[in-house]
Amino acid sequence: MAVITSYISIATQGQGDIIDITLDAQKIITGNKIQDGLLCLFVPGSTAAITTIEFEPGLQKDINLFLEKIIPRNANYHHHDTWHDDNGSSHLRTSMIGPSITVPIVDGTLTLGTWQQIVVIECDTRKRNRKIVAQIVY
Amino acid sequence: MAVITSYISIATQGQGDIIDITLDAQKIITGNKIQDGLLCLFVPGSTAAITTIEFEPGLQKDINLFLEKIIPRNANYHHHDTWHDDNGSSHLRTSMIGPSITVPIVDGTLTLGTWQQIVVIECDTRKRNRKIVAQIVY
Amino acid sequence: MAVITSYISIATQGQGDIIDITLDAQKIITGNKIQDGLLCLFVPGSTAAITTIEFEPGLQKDINLFLEKIIPRNANYHHHDTWHDDNGSSHLRTSMIGPSITVPIVDGTLTLGTWQQIVVIECDTRKRNRKIVAQIVY
Repeated sequence: MAVITSYISIATQGQGDIIDITLDAQKIITGNKIQDGLLCLFVPGSTAAITTIEFEPGLQKDINLFLEKIIPRNANYHHHDTWHDDNGSSHLRTSMIGPSITVPIVDGTLTLGTWQQIVVIECDTRKRNRKIVAQIVY
Repeated sequence: MAVITSYISIATQGQGDIIDITLDAQKIITGNKIQDGLLCLFVPGSTAAITTIEFEPGLQKDINLFLEKIIPRNANYHHHDTWHDDNGSSHLRTSMIGPSITVPIVDGTLTLGTWQQIVVIECDTRKRNRKIVAQIVY
Repeated sequence: MAVITSYISIATQGQGDIIDITLDAQKIITGNKIQDGLLCLFVPGSTAAITTIEFEPGLQKDINLFLEKIIPRNANYHHHDTWHDDNGSSHLRTSMIGPSITVPIVDGTLTLGTWQQIVVIECDTRKRNRKIVAQIVY
């Protein structure tokens, strides 16, 4: 067995920005000639989430409308009292969706569906630079 | 170390169908004589989710009522404008719950609770055949 | 490769109790002198969830207010008819958030952000003892 750790760096435009990192992840697999194993993608920080979605503009709007409906940005959060901050919604959205995903690699390829992409959802209220950890065990 | 990849094939009845795949997963472990390691179950496609639940009829109704409440099937979604499709709710439900789960194997057995089953939740609006990837690293 | 399985035992105070297990997880890594690999934390049982959050009192209130809003404790659930139980909300909250998380270990340390902790969210309606499985593949 071996463990390989790599990183995917992205710059986000703040809350609601959704970034497709599928190709970056696949490049790490191909570049390291991995055939079979597990890829774990994990975003450090408590205000960005990782999941899969069909990456098309309509759904990007839909997921943001949905998140705004159930966890509104401008509601009152106790978190704001703690830090005089404005990103309580960012934390809740992230904890609900989760900061990571683990995907099998088979024959050198992620086992995603054709219309399924791995995305980072920026939940913070400001622009952020994110360095996603990509670790493979194989 | 080694990696074993297997598959679990199921046929679903469309949105709201919940399929218990715990026994299928355990059979793969037992059949390959795995003692300890991680099992990752991943469903390719962006309209089916994997999680755990106590698999009993009441909760199957409850989870569907809950999903319908927060992500209604018949609402308007921008995704429908993109593809003239009807499954915007399917995508949102899947992205929120997630397409995979990773479970430890200890002494040849998944570390599930007695009343905890691994399930696929079909979120798509039509019947689908699903081939779930079951990969073990050990 | 090798697999190490350890356990983190906690006592919870019932629905809404949020326990930070980050230090316990890190101690297992340090105690076993693990440098790089994947840690999977999994809570057996269908009424407790694992995610990450900035562990501060304001957000602990916020996440409970959010969960109560979308999955109220005192609503009617079909699950209650099945078992004459009162914890339908516990099951739904758990299935939505999920019972596990997988985190990369790099240079002997979990790749968490500074303000990001791994937490168990007790969703059950009564006090529980929880024995979380902590498995490392490396």
